[in-house]
Amino acid sequence: MEVSFPYDSVDLSSDKSFLVILDQTQLPAKEVFLQLNDENEIFEAIYTLKVRGAPAIGIAAAFGVCVIMNREKSLSVDSFRIKTLEVISRLNSSRPTAVNLSWALKRMERKLISRLLLPDITVDELLKSLFEEAEVIKAEDVEMCRSISEYGLTLLKPEMGVLTHCNAGHIAVSRLGTALGPLYLAKEAGYNLRVYADETRPLLQGSRLTAFELMKYGIDVTLICDNMAYSVMERGWVDIVFTGCDRIAKNGDVANKIGTAGLAVIAKNKGIPFYVLGPSSSIDTACMSGDEIIIEERPSYEVTDSMFKLRVAPKGVKVYNPAFDITRAENITGIITENGIYKYPYNF
Amino acid sequence: MEVSFPYDSVDLSSDKSFLVILDQTQLPAKEVFLQLNDENEIFEAIYTLKVRGAPAIGIAAAFGVCVIMNREKSLSVDSFRIKTLEVISRLNSSRPTAVNLSWALKRMERKLISRLLLPDITVDELLKSLFEEAEVIKAEDVEMCRSISEYGLTLLKPEMGVLTHCNAGHIAVSRLGTALGPLYLAKEAGYNLRVYADETRPLLQGSRLTAFELMKYGIDVTLICDNMAYSVMERGWVDIVFTGCDRIAKNGDVANKIGTAGLAVIAKNKGIPFYVLGPSSSIDTACMSGDEIIIEERPSYEVTDSMFKLRVAPKGVKVYNPAFDITRAENITGIITENGIYKYPYNF
Repeated sequence: MEVSFPYDSVDLSSDKSFLVILDQTQLPAKEVFLQLNDENEIFEAIYTLKVRGAPAIGIAAAFGVCVIMNREKSLSVDSFRIKTLEVISRLNSSRPTAVNLSWALKRMERKLISRLLLPDITVDELLKSLFEEAEVIKAEDVEMCRSISEYGLTLLKPEMGVLTHCNAGHIAVSRLGTALGPLYLAKEAGYNLRVYADETRPLLQGSRLTAFELMKYGIDVTLICDNMAYSVMERGWVDIVFTGCDRIAKNGDVANKIGTAGLAVIAKNKGIPFYVLGPSSSIDTACMSGDEIIIEERPSYEVTDSMFKLRVAPKGVKVYNPAFDITRAENITGIITENGIYKYPYNF
Repeated sequence: MEVSFPYDSVDLSSDKSFLVILDQTQLPAKEVFLQLNDENEIFEAIYTLKVRGAPAIGIAAAFGVCVIMNREKSLSVDSFRIKTLEVISRLNSSRPTAVNLSWALKRMERKLISRLLLPDITVDELLKSLFEEAEVIKAEDVEMCRSISEYGLTLLKPEMGVLTHCNAGHIAVSRLGTALGPLYLAKEAGYNLRVYADETRPLLQGSRLTAFELMKYGIDVTLICDNMAYSVMERGWVDIVFTGCDRIAKNGDVANKIGTAGLAVIAKNKGIPFYVLGPSSSIDTACMSGDEIIIEERPSYEVTDSMFKLRVAPKGVKVYNPAFDITRAENITGIITENGIYKYPYNF
């Protein structure tokens, strides 16, 4: 069963000199692709969420290292090494919460360092290895998403109602998606699902991205504000909740888009199964529980005006704007990775 | 202890020929007052939330009947009666969920009908009675709010964190507010509260109105998106939740702004007391439980663009946009009216 998408949201240009990303900040109005090979531009694209989704930013950063360093072929091996490590460190600071970014960059760093052990290695050879590693990271992600999606599909039946938060779909990863992946497979299998998409304040990834991509592939989606999730559950419209994740602690606590934690409490209260879907690279076994996960706080203008070009709060108002929250393991029915479906209690 | 506000958000003009309302749709950018005495304009002002807040729309409708009929003094008594009943019926259809609107209009209707029993009653005398009744409704509301606020104050201590949803403040009622009333009294008493205001999607009454009015009176308020309530509770910043209500069923189920029900579940999960504050006129003893309460559904553009002048969802997306939800009595720690603090289980 194949799902065909007209593009990947993160890719290399055919001549491999540019990182090509779908600019997610311009959706749903326009599908604009950006070609980037400048360090500042790539940092900014990740920081401002032009590319977003935990797996997608990992891949974008890996490709980013390649195309940035591709412009530095004239350096000596030693200068190339130093510059590559600087770029990795810089890109790694662009978003703190998702583990995939640092995981992908760590792989790039290890590849570089292992190749440097070889005698007489050249900059061209180092560069070739970096490109290979980035391509492998992406190819593995494509396969992981497929496996996650197939496990997720086993939990679905025709006519079910599925609620999702934020966007963990096609455009958040290399190809199929994590939380939305099973929905694409279900569509191919002829299931007639009803999907409820939380709009996901403050940056509205649910309305701008999830509603956009599901509608584009002909999946029945209804947009709700985050605070309406209780009501659609109360009405019996939701059979299961699928969300993505940015980091999973050893005990199964999950960092994901702000709003996920409360949604899990409400789902549990309503007796609705709540599943988190993500690659095993999201599991951070060095992190014992959610208490150790740093939560990114973002600028107040995202809440007070930004997305809307029109201020909706009084000038000078204090704002608390965490980008993520920690869903307690006890409120998560299951965690799905490419390796299978894990049930509470978790011990990764 | 007096709290002085520079204006009431619902009032009569000094010559009694206009209903004067603060146009809440223009907040927080501008404080604009509208003078209305046309039936269509008054209907539209209630429907489009220029005047909002369950008690405030009851008072606006009562004054509305007066100023509309004030223009019909030349009618015969019989035509005046028919026209008044038509106006009452029309205004009553402007918003379905809050009980205060129909409660206030029912009082106006009863007053009219009781006066019509008198021999030789004139249109001028009928009109005078209508004005008197509307003034009494407002005066009673001022007193009710004060009593509710005093009961609410008994639950507060200096330095507490209070979370609130939507706007049940000064501008939602005749004067002091219901859910926010205790905060004004606490301010006067020198308590240093920290207030967290849910922005309250889709119409952002929390950011536009609650943050506005609390800042205006020097109360420390932090704006959050609705889906951040779990996080501020998790951090230990919230000691108590206060919300208003639109209708209370006999069993204590509460209809209030969409998002209240899920918030109550989350507060209960976090062990944080959750109180609903409203006048006893919000209690509808004819309604046995929340299942019998009609939930107003509003246009999809409120979610997809409206407030923001910039579309944030794909064209043609399906939207579910309920304006209210039902908070189950079991998730409500207490209900506060002007008559005291009631604890679960409720039997009104």
